[in-house]
Amino acid sequence: MKLNGNYARLSDSYLFSNIAAKVRAYKEAHPDEEVVSLGIGDVTRPLAPDVIREMSAATRDLASEATFRGYGPEQGYAFLRDAIVRHYAEKGVVLRADEIFVGDGAKSDLGNMVELFGRSRVLLPDPVYPAYRDVNVMAGNSIHFAVGNGRNGFKPMPPYGKRFDIIYICSPGNPTGAVYTREELKEWVDYALATGAVIFFDAAYEAFVSDASLPTSVFEIEGARECAVEFNSLSKSAGFTGMRCGWTVVPSELADGALNKMWLRRQTTKFNGASYVVQRAAAAALGSRGEKQCRESVEYYMSNARVMHEALTAAHIRHTGGVNSPYIWMQCPKGMTSWEYFDLLLNKAAVVGTPGVGFGRHGEGYFRLTAFGNAEKTARAIARLVEVTSSLK
Amino acid sequence: MKLNGNYARLSDSYLFSNIAAKVRAYKEAHPDEEVVSLGIGDVTRPLAPDVIREMSAATRDLASEATFRGYGPEQGYAFLRDAIVRHYAEKGVVLRADEIFVGDGAKSDLGNMVELFGRSRVLLPDPVYPAYRDVNVMAGNSIHFAVGNGRNGFKPMPPYGKRFDIIYICSPGNPTGAVYTREELKEWVDYALATGAVIFFDAAYEAFVSDASLPTSVFEIEGARECAVEFNSLSKSAGFTGMRCGWTVVPSELADGALNKMWLRRQTTKFNGASYVVQRAAAAALGSRGEKQCRESVEYYMSNARVMHEALTAAHIRHTGGVNSPYIWMQCPKGMTSWEYFDLLLNKAAVVGTPGVGFGRHGEGYFRLTAFGNAEKTARAIARLVEVTSSLK
Repeated sequence: MKLNGNYARLSDSYLFSNIAAKVRAYKEAHPDEEVVSLGIGDVTRPLAPDVIREMSAATRDLASEATFRGYGPEQGYAFLRDAIVRHYAEKGVVLRADEIFVGDGAKSDLGNMVELFGRSRVLLPDPVYPAYRDVNVMAGNSIHFAVGNGRNGFKPMPPYGKRFDIIYICSPGNPTGAVYTREELKEWVDYALATGAVIFFDAAYEAFVSDASLPTSVFEIEGARECAVEFNSLSKSAGFTGMRCGWTVVPSELADGALNKMWLRRQTTKFNGASYVVQRAAAAALGSRGEKQCRESVEYYMSNARVMHEALTAAHIRHTGGVNSPYIWMQCPKGMTSWEYFDLLLNKAAVVGTPGVGFGRHGEGYFRLTAFGNAEKTARAIARLVEVTSSLK
Repeated sequence: MKLNGNYARLSDSYLFSNIAAKVRAYKEAHPDEEVVSLGIGDVTRPLAPDVIREMSAATRDLASEATFRGYGPEQGYAFLRDAIVRHYAEKGVVLRADEIFVGDGAKSDLGNMVELFGRSRVLLPDPVYPAYRDVNVMAGNSIHFAVGNGRNGFKPMPPYGKRFDIIYICSPGNPTGAVYTREELKEWVDYALATGAVIFFDAAYEAFVSDASLPTSVFEIEGARECAVEFNSLSKSAGFTGMRCGWTVVPSELADGALNKMWLRRQTTKFNGASYVVQRAAAAALGSRGEKQCRESVEYYMSNARVMHEALTAAHIRHTGGVNSPYIWMQCPKGMTSWEYFDLLLNKAAVVGTPGVGFGRHGEGYFRLTAFGNAEKTARAIARLVEVTSSLK
């Protein structure tokens, strides 16, 4: 057998295992202290009542022969794809059901979509969600970075004069919480069209955008149907991290229709559809009543984000995000690396966050906070974080 | 963007859409006639009571904050991997939990596993489940066939003197229903070890084996831990075709431990675990009570297989399978292609099956019947099939 040699070029990631080991050691040494994590990337609120009701009904369907469902369409049931079409229509984006592919989450599709391309020059933001990089290392692609920093509000703009095959954009961004404006996204679309690139647009955090002037789908931008694929997920908007359901939009214009056909072929060959009960639950989450219920959890998280954002602002601690995004990307105190700041916070404030360097070289000196925790704990933790951080000045 | 040129080398498959179109046309012309399908590849019996009970309990867990579950381990929850370890222990196969990877079905894993290898020479049986071939075309691998025919009981044996990197074996086989004996499988394992190949062993139909002398896992064979990966699924054994849950075993000995680590890395990077409720349901299906309940459906299907097998045997129609397998692979009447026989059966007996040529060049002249239908309808349909076929002699 011949192994894929690209795997040897992956760098091991110990980010979250290192964090877990440090937290464990601290808790063992301080058994009576409350350690609060502001580093949770997972949701914590239960599923919406309508979602639970629909899952229970779907479960009952599977219990009797007359209503049993076996294999479903690989690209998703029509009832769910139609619900997704309506979800886009509400923001003025017109899609056909056969441009939508239901999957088991954005992570799978973002990784698997790379298969449709030959060896590619790939442009990623730095800092970045590490899986974007790793799936391209596995494919043997050459990886280039567009640096996001304080000067561009952590929103890298097109590197004019250079060409890439695949461009990754995540907006609202993980880890920085930065959100592209309509005009900025238009620049990326125009650049992709001019250079023949495809944009992989990760819209997993769209539900956290409350400012109506900000785009929540790349297809709100003229020309995007000719150059972009969009990945979305119910993980954060409806609490589906453990349910596993997302979708990918492959417009029929892309590569003269070739890409939509290729993805259909890929999915029908290597995937057998998302679970029936999960698809029923997903349709409920996108229904008018279910969506309202899901919004309550999103607002709960955004209230956490606001509390953190206001506390940091009052203390003059530089940061982005926390508005239109569940992530806050804050500057570490002067002269501290992100791991040094992590250690300080854990030991002096019993607060856990995520060192920015875990998201790329240009994440060094920054720190990620998330809004997915319990409200009372989050409020206590941000107060302790501000106190410890301010005392350093 | 550069598209993956291998996709252009895929041949379009119209097998099932052609069948559907012919059946539709027949039904329109004969609205009052009962058309029975003996071509169903999907299960039709409802889920077991214990599985339903556990899914309902898991759904309730997701409805409240205290019991909510978000992201799970990408390789599957410990409770399910431990249940799978016990499932193997019952047949005398000792596995470690970290050699087991829970996924959303064998189809995904069988396709995705190819990524761990560089350009490979791949050996497939012919006839074969078409996805095996397509995923290797997509990867740019060179594809070679080991012919299964009446002379070898549709169980091709190693092509001594030739070398391949990846060897696919499905036993009990789809579409032929043939089951390798322990001795035959040992030949394949020895051949793989001698030539440095890896075996992809598809055990999706193991639950249909009732003859205790036949192996139901490649790991019952000495040496397999050094050369084989095994794919399994609850689709047919527990009726999970719409639920989506399977597992893959990657022994720690393979490629000196490299393959297990690579698959773990692949799954943690491009997959986020099977749905929590589905994993709870899967554990119930593997529990002692749940397994007994699932066996009742397997026995229902195997009773259909027996009825078909006995009817064909009594009429001296040559076939394999139907014993230790839910598939029957029968010879078409002399001089008829598999599509000609399909048309004859549809028009004279109102019975639908699957033309063997859909599974490869060497499937021409054969016809696949499945045992997944309703018992009364299956009995009526096989009687009509036998009558029409015998009248040709």
